[in-house]
Amino acid sequence: MRQDFQSEFASVSSSLVTMAKAVRDAMRQASTALLTADYTLAQQVTDNDAQVDVLYRVVDDRVFNLVLRRQPITGDLRSALSALQAATDLERMGDLAVHVARATLRRYPATAAAPELADLFRAMSTVADQLAAKIVVALSHGDEALAGQLDGDDDAMDQLHRQLFQVMLSSDWPLGVEAAVDGALLGRYYERYADRAVNVGRHVMSLAAKS
Amino acid sequence: MRQDFQSEFASVSSSLVTMAKAVRDAMRQASTALLTADYTLAQQVTDNDAQVDVLYRVVDDRVFNLVLRRQPITGDLRSALSALQAATDLERMGDLAVHVARATLRRYPATAAAPELADLFRAMSTVADQLAAKIVVALSHGDEALAGQLDGDDDAMDQLHRQLFQVMLSSDWPLGVEAAVDGALLGRYYERYADRAVNVGRHVMSLAAKS
Repeated sequence: MRQDFQSEFASVSSSLVTMAKAVRDAMRQASTALLTADYTLAQQVTDNDAQVDVLYRVVDDRVFNLVLRRQPITGDLRSALSALQAATDLERMGDLAVHVARATLRRYPATAAAPELADLFRAMSTVADQLAAKIVVALSHGDEALAGQLDGDDDAMDQLHRQLFQVMLSSDWPLGVEAAVDGALLGRYYERYADRAVNVGRHVMSLAAKS
Repeated sequence: MRQDFQSEFASVSSSLVTMAKAVRDAMRQASTALLTADYTLAQQVTDNDAQVDVLYRVVDDRVFNLVLRRQPITGDLRSALSALQAATDLERMGDLAVHVARATLRRYPATAAAPELADLFRAMSTVADQLAAKIVVALSHGDEALAGQLDGDDDAMDQLHRQLFQVMLSSDWPLGVEAAVDGALLGRYYERYADRAVNVGRHVMSLAAKS
């Protein structure tokens, strides 16, 4: 019974890896679109999100059927439920990439990333990409140690997030309200993306520890 | 077996109702604190959130043990997993109330709700409270019809959210960047709270339809 569970669970894990790669690509493309005011690329990010949503439903469906048919033992059940939660977080990471893309679409042909903030957004997108890259590897190999590193990366994101607000709220902020509102929301999207990535890492640890 | 499942599941449902009441109170208090710049009340919201987190772990634990020991049939398993997802959304609604409270704490003794935006925040907090009230009732009675009304309330929230940005981004916005940044973030917290409430409603429909 246990072996049956685990061989079927491999297809769930493989869908999670595909999801993680997709939401990594989505945020990378959304960031490039943001920093270069690329309408077509931003549009592509919003169009591609449907694929992530489909993958979410695939994971949900597979986990459900697996638990229903295989009546898993403790560790296997924990893995199954962690996979479901990881899929929820990954789906939301895809949505957050779409939010970044939509900010680009909304301001086009102008930019949603004020020049004064572009370096910070570049740094935030780099941290987001590192987090997503680690999740892909951690999910692929059930790498508990790697998943544990995510908290540190998230601290870097939080620090950039604080810096962003310092720049916008300083007395010599040269731009208007619109640029600051865009900045605040974009900062929040990156911060939430990183936070969700840390959640996925926790689920991976739970997958790895119990399986 | 099925009856055993359902009698044990009643305690999960009851914890979800307690969570929903707690996150309703949290946002109501956070909104009052925001609109009256009440430091003590805002602090209370952040302190109370630990109780919601404890309830989340109670639900998670009970659902896990229920599925493990009872090997539920299709409808019961769907209910169990929906309960887990509802708990995740409720826990996050509690966090969003804390975010509103923190904005109040951050700006005290000044206000995070600019007078120009206070009416909109009051309206948003009313819609948020209506949504939370409906969730409490829907979870208490498995009320599918009520859960289905939540989408309409969420549309009202989205409209207020759009109005908020119109006010802040209009050329005659009399306040500075800080007030607009606070406004953008607070608006987002309310919008997300409502969105999560709609999710809870969907899980209730799934609970009601399958049980």
